[in-house]
Amino acid sequence: MAETTEAAPTPPPAFANYQNEIYLSGLADQVPDLPCEPGRLEDLARERFAPEPFGYVAGSAGTEGTARANRAAFDRWRIVPRFLRDVSERDLSTTILGTPFPAPVALAPVGVQGIVHPEAELAVARAAAGLRLPMVLSTVSSYRLEEVAEVGGDSPRWFQLYWPRDHDVAASLIARAKAAGFAALVVTLDTFVLAWRPRDLAHAYLPFLHRMGLANYESDPAFLAGLAKSPDEDPGSAVLHWLSMFGDPTKTWDDLVWLREQWDGPILLKGVLHPDDARRAADAGIDGVVVSNHGGRQIDGEIASLDALPAVVEAVGDRMTVLLDSGVRTGSDVIKALALGAKAVLIGRPYVYGLGLGGEDGVRHVLRSLLAELDLSMALAGCRRPGDIGPEVLRRADDLGVVPSSS
Amino acid sequence: MAETTEAAPTPPPAFANYQNEIYLSGLADQVPDLPCEPGRLEDLARERFAPEPFGYVAGSAGTEGTARANRAAFDRWRIVPRFLRDVSERDLSTTILGTPFPAPVALAPVGVQGIVHPEAELAVARAAAGLRLPMVLSTVSSYRLEEVAEVGGDSPRWFQLYWPRDHDVAASLIARAKAAGFAALVVTLDTFVLAWRPRDLAHAYLPFLHRMGLANYESDPAFLAGLAKSPDEDPGSAVLHWLSMFGDPTKTWDDLVWLREQWDGPILLKGVLHPDDARRAADAGIDGVVVSNHGGRQIDGEIASLDALPAVVEAVGDRMTVLLDSGVRTGSDVIKALALGAKAVLIGRPYVYGLGLGGEDGVRHVLRSLLAELDLSMALAGCRRPGDIGPEVLRRADDLGVVPSSS
Amino acid sequence: MAETTEAAPTPPPAFANYQNEIYLSGLADQVPDLPCEPGRLEDLARERFAPEPFGYVAGSAGTEGTARANRAAFDRWRIVPRFLRDVSERDLSTTILGTPFPAPVALAPVGVQGIVHPEAELAVARAAAGLRLPMVLSTVSSYRLEEVAEVGGDSPRWFQLYWPRDHDVAASLIARAKAAGFAALVVTLDTFVLAWRPRDLAHAYLPFLHRMGLANYESDPAFLAGLAKSPDEDPGSAVLHWLSMFGDPTKTWDDLVWLREQWDGPILLKGVLHPDDARRAADAGIDGVVVSNHGGRQIDGEIASLDALPAVVEAVGDRMTVLLDSGVRTGSDVIKALALGAKAVLIGRPYVYGLGLGGEDGVRHVLRSLLAELDLSMALAGCRRPGDIGPEVLRRADDLGVVPSSS
Amino acid sequence: MAETTEAAPTPPPAFANYQNEIYLSGLADQVPDLPCEPGRLEDLARERFAPEPFGYVAGSAGTEGTARANRAAFDRWRIVPRFLRDVSERDLSTTILGTPFPAPVALAPVGVQGIVHPEAELAVARAAAGLRLPMVLSTVSSYRLEEVAEVGGDSPRWFQLYWPRDHDVAASLIARAKAAGFAALVVTLDTFVLAWRPRDLAHAYLPFLHRMGLANYESDPAFLAGLAKSPDEDPGSAVLHWLSMFGDPTKTWDDLVWLREQWDGPILLKGVLHPDDARRAADAGIDGVVVSNHGGRQIDGEIASLDALPAVVEAVGDRMTVLLDSGVRTGSDVIKALALGAKAVLIGRPYVYGLGLGGEDGVRHVLRSLLAELDLSMALAGCRRPGDIGPEVLRRADDLGVVPSSS
Repeated sequence: MAETTEAAPTPPPAFANYQNEIYLSGLADQVPDLPCEPGRLEDLARERFAPEPFGYVAGSAGTEGTARANRAAFDRWRIVPRFLRDVSERDLSTTILGTPFPAPVALAPVGVQGIVHPEAELAVARAAAGLRLPMVLSTVSSYRLEEVAEVGGDSPRWFQLYWPRDHDVAASLIARAKAAGFAALVVTLDTFVLAWRPRDLAHAYLPFLHRMGLANYESDPAFLAGLAKSPDEDPGSAVLHWLSMFGDPTKTWDDLVWLREQWDGPILLKGVLHPDDARRAADAGIDGVVVSNHGGRQIDGEIASLDALPAVVEAVGDRMTVLLDSGVRTGSDVIKALALGAKAVLIGRPYVYGLGLGGEDGVRHVLRSLLAELDLSMALAGCRRPGDIGPEVLRRADDLGVVPSSS
Repeated sequence: MAETTEAAPTPPPAFANYQNEIYLSGLADQVPDLPCEPGRLEDLARERFAPEPFGYVAGSAGTEGTARANRAAFDRWRIVPRFLRDVSERDLSTTILGTPFPAPVALAPVGVQGIVHPEAELAVARAAAGLRLPMVLSTVSSYRLEEVAEVGGDSPRWFQLYWPRDHDVAASLIARAKAAGFAALVVTLDTFVLAWRPRDLAHAYLPFLHRMGLANYESDPAFLAGLAKSPDEDPGSAVLHWLSMFGDPTKTWDDLVWLREQWDGPILLKGVLHPDDARRAADAGIDGVVVSNHGGRQIDGEIASLDALPAVVEAVGDRMTVLLDSGVRTGSDVIKALALGAKAVLIGRPYVYGLGLGGEDGVRHVLRSLLAELDLSMALAGCRRPGDIGPEVLRRADDLGVVPSSS
Repeated sequence: MAETTEAAPTPPPAFANYQNEIYLSGLADQVPDLPCEPGRLEDLARERFAPEPFGYVAGSAGTEGTARANRAAFDRWRIVPRFLRDVSERDLSTTILGTPFPAPVALAPVGVQGIVHPEAELAVARAAAGLRLPMVLSTVSSYRLEEVAEVGGDSPRWFQLYWPRDHDVAASLIARAKAAGFAALVVTLDTFVLAWRPRDLAHAYLPFLHRMGLANYESDPAFLAGLAKSPDEDPGSAVLHWLSMFGDPTKTWDDLVWLREQWDGPILLKGVLHPDDARRAADAGIDGVVVSNHGGRQIDGEIASLDALPAVVEAVGDRMTVLLDSGVRTGSDVIKALALGAKAVLIGRPYVYGLGLGGEDGVRHVLRSLLAELDLSMALAGCRRPGDIGPEVLRRADDLGVVPSSS
Repeated sequence: MAETTEAAPTPPPAFANYQNEIYLSGLADQVPDLPCEPGRLEDLARERFAPEPFGYVAGSAGTEGTARANRAAFDRWRIVPRFLRDVSERDLSTTILGTPFPAPVALAPVGVQGIVHPEAELAVARAAAGLRLPMVLSTVSSYRLEEVAEVGGDSPRWFQLYWPRDHDVAASLIARAKAAGFAALVVTLDTFVLAWRPRDLAHAYLPFLHRMGLANYESDPAFLAGLAKSPDEDPGSAVLHWLSMFGDPTKTWDDLVWLREQWDGPILLKGVLHPDDARRAADAGIDGVVVSNHGGRQIDGEIASLDALPAVVEAVGDRMTVLLDSGVRTGSDVIKALALGAKAVLIGRPYVYGLGLGGEDGVRHVLRSLLAELDLSMALAGCRRPGDIGPEVLRRADDLGVVPSSS
């Protein structure tokens, strides 16, 4: 299988090759199955997905103003390239909290991928492993974390935790993630309750109520211990049990002590947007934060993730690893996030569209497109490696630098 | 009837429950009758209402630029959430000028609701009472204030006064409102003349000329005293009489002395946008102001209500209660208004769309949607109660905080 | 004829009455023939006019960016109303350079109105006279200035001069204007050549080449003196002669001496946008300037007229009368222009749409609509007369005044 | 042939005459074949071109945000005209690095024009020569540089170099350009790799892979020396050979020494956006820079070319000639670029649309339209020659100059 061949231990030297592959395929009158531009990709998903899963993936909180703000924030920054630097040999790789990244990009945790494709996280894991891109597996995945780990082989993987109310379940999930070779724990702060999402509400669509996305729970001894009957025998009770423990709004900074004890690898807090929260995380011995507004899915009217980034980096950039997600669509977006201090970004919806539209091949297409554009844009901006990307690469769209005086 | 059950004396502990109800209804393949997003709600109203009443409700003054400005003002502010605070127990209640509010939200006075639904203000009063949300009844309501009060029972209500030219009518309306248990008087400043509203002009549609919205006048002895024949006998004269006294452009600050004498409860002035007007109101012994541009219905090109808020709060926030309306559509909007100093907001058009689309049920759906989103968004922002919401919750969309220097 | 009755010597006390007339007409199931909102009016004109004249009236220079900028400039300013002032008696009248204005509004010079309606400037003059609004007649009118003057009777009128290359023609036109009772001379600076107007170019449409708009020339002895045959006998030569003298790009500030000698009444220069040009005009004994970019019809990418206004007022406001046109569509726009220092505004395209859609009645409808909205908006803003409108009435859309600090 | 007649040694005295020609053609009921507005021109090209070449010409990198930013940057600057200057005699001519320009406009290098019209660069060269506008011929032209030179006659021409990896090919191309009378060398910095262009990727369309645009290579002895068989015998190998040498990401500033030795005429670097790169170019003895982002075709999210201009002019304007391209569409754009310090601009896509829509006539129409608008707009702005256009001609759209204070 071609994908297995690609999953070589050494990262591809030039992700940009994908561009050439596409152009060369044109000589055989073959155009790519899926678009190479994220807007068109979403358009195609809207056309082909059933309304409920499309709404679940594409939708955001409230009037979806936060999702729009995420994109507008990227638009306000502009890349100023430098030329005549030898950029023939690029090395996009980096190491984040001990995990090798072939490029400063990981797959954001996205739950319940089974709603768009039956192979769900397994297909995603295969595509990610082929590129050795770290995948952050959601707690509410459609397949068990052990199954996903097995498919991923030795490709790096992190585990995203929706920190449940029940300590035993939390401890069990963490232990299983550890056992299955997940290298870091990404604890989502911003989803202890589900937000007001009008698209899902219009469809009265919450996949979990149909037992979708509960694979990790229904396979968990600690979770099952709370049930009188097995989920198959009494599905309603299983779902209610899950609902009762999924999120925990009572959690406070003090609870991080317990968490820190459960996991000796790196822990990242996902959802931090305020510099003071970042400082508290650093004080609590947390290793990193993901500056994120959950893709605009939690609070309408929230600060754009990219707008929140500089203050967080200023506050804790010297003590913690700062990543970013929410609104990242293109290679240029990655450059902007890195220039503002992120060490890497997480990409979400685009690969889920790829999954729904083309399974593993679709995911691979989306990831390779992003990496190709990143590779090419870095080269064109005069940057050979992530470390070359600093704030001097950017200027504000409305900052003139030199303004002629006018009488 | 389920609604009666809900009208419990204690406010619901978690408005967010409404979200769960909707999702759970999906298990029975039941989707909500009405949209959960204010834009879609207006779209549906446009589709289902007759053009004249839709134009009357949705329309604004002139080119409707003020209505657009109201929304743009909210967009410029972004919420910065805080995490790992125990927000499991939220209490959205507050007390405004002696009136208990289960959440910092009231129903704005909207006149002549009979044009969209025959039950009009009665249906609204029932829905509001079910949630114990204060309703501000318009002077130009389709039902008599006494009828609305009876329906509302012991749920809190305020009375909005279009201060008529005729002192006897003014005094009579105020006395009746007092007798009917309205707890506060909201005096609208900005509608002593009707504005230039192209949608209504295109339809030559002014409901009052057809005796709609005159219930309080036609039942008022002081008003009737000015008529030779009863309104039913000579409707034309009744309407002309009403037109001649409805508004009074001669009123000045000195007239507040008389008003203050008529009403010993709290008085709020609605429509204040300039800090100096707020100061004069405070000096005149007024208890509160509603920063409002009448939903953009009076002056085209007017300052956005939210943009006017901070200066008013700065001027009189320590002496008066400052509320806000105009442009509020979502729970996040409520958070932003509170963060900028409002103690509560008034919501208008959305519940009228709910009324026209679904009667009492429709109003309830809209109110519960707003409260659910507010409850969830406050929790997600790290706020347990209105008092937790201060200016530090917000940042301007274009304020970077930390800007990397660029050579 | 109803219109004659309206042309009373005293200005109507309350232009807002027009609103009431429209609403009352609804009782007889009569809606207005034309829209009451300028955008809808233009939409209807686009639908009903032939493409060439619509393009000529609606079109602007190049990509029409200046026309968009004109509107955007108004949007950036917001009106802050004041309340509880007695505004029952408004007096919108003012006197501009000796001419009584019933409201701070005049009809901008618009050429060749015959392309949209056969009665052209005669219909406009009748409508203007009915309201006693000053009409500024264009040099390139479809009817002779004497004919228009006769129709206008004793209602005030000004004459706009396209200053021709031929001194004899210039002197003759000026003398005729004087004789016909035009009270002021408005000399357009910005149209010595015609701009690049893609809509007209697409139709290869220049009405003057078909002898439209040349009435004042073809009736002028000095113009005819330059022709071997009469225009009817040799129309081509007449047009070429007109083309050769219509504009004069050689004119300089020194030429104003000659102009000043020809006309002992007030002279205004129309098209001034730079404060230094305004200063030179004042130094040359000119009485007023019209800050104008010719409705965006001359230079694409030009400064918005309203954006240019404050600097001109700052430069010469104490020495000259400053008027404004370009982009004025609503009564609120008038208030904004006055607040920024204009003494009056000129309105253009809207009344031409009214003319083409409804002849004299259409013009009257448009003017009365504008005046009604101005009257109502001034009342609602707390202003009784133009002199009450100062800079304190405005705030910038993005100026918060009081900004809460955010950590 | 009319065009030959037009190619007179003296620049046309008034480009604006083209406007008159179009209007006069209307007397014979002839409207122009092509639009006079750049947006309409692109619309027509979209309609008439095949999707692949239209996508290639119109498309930009990634989400095409840089192309949008280019236009937005022009919109933020507004022209402030001055009047009553004698502008009857304009002279738009200038001299750039020894080359006479009849106007501060050149034809940007655009490759492989054969995809839109069979006469390609030959038609463009004829149209340019007719106006004596300098044409910058692309390395990847559809016709050999010698053929294009022959058609252009003594009209000025520059050669754009995609600096190949193979020194012999580079030297040969440069020598041929010199021999064929190209007066300056424009070295493109920003295209050593091709960018991520979704429109082309969607079509898997890269014309060069079909040997289109390789005329200069396939006619080059140094290029052919690297092939075992002629391109006609083995086209695949020829294309691969071209691919391997087309761009060279290893080039650094040191390589400019070699380049400087190859060419004793003026050298410009195209693609400079950062002032430090401009300084290094000046230090390396380069004569000029073209501030350019390749029409937005290389890096998505890049700084707008016009936004980058002032800092480059500030850095090297006294030592080098600074030109600009990317986003220039109108005569007003040219004025803005000159006002911000560019000595001339390069125009790209519009003339290619003209070529595809009307061959040589189409190119001429587009160029004459631009020049006519430039000529007219300069006259209307009070500028007689390029040297009259300085920063005082501009103001920022949101800069008020004089702001009234508001309490």
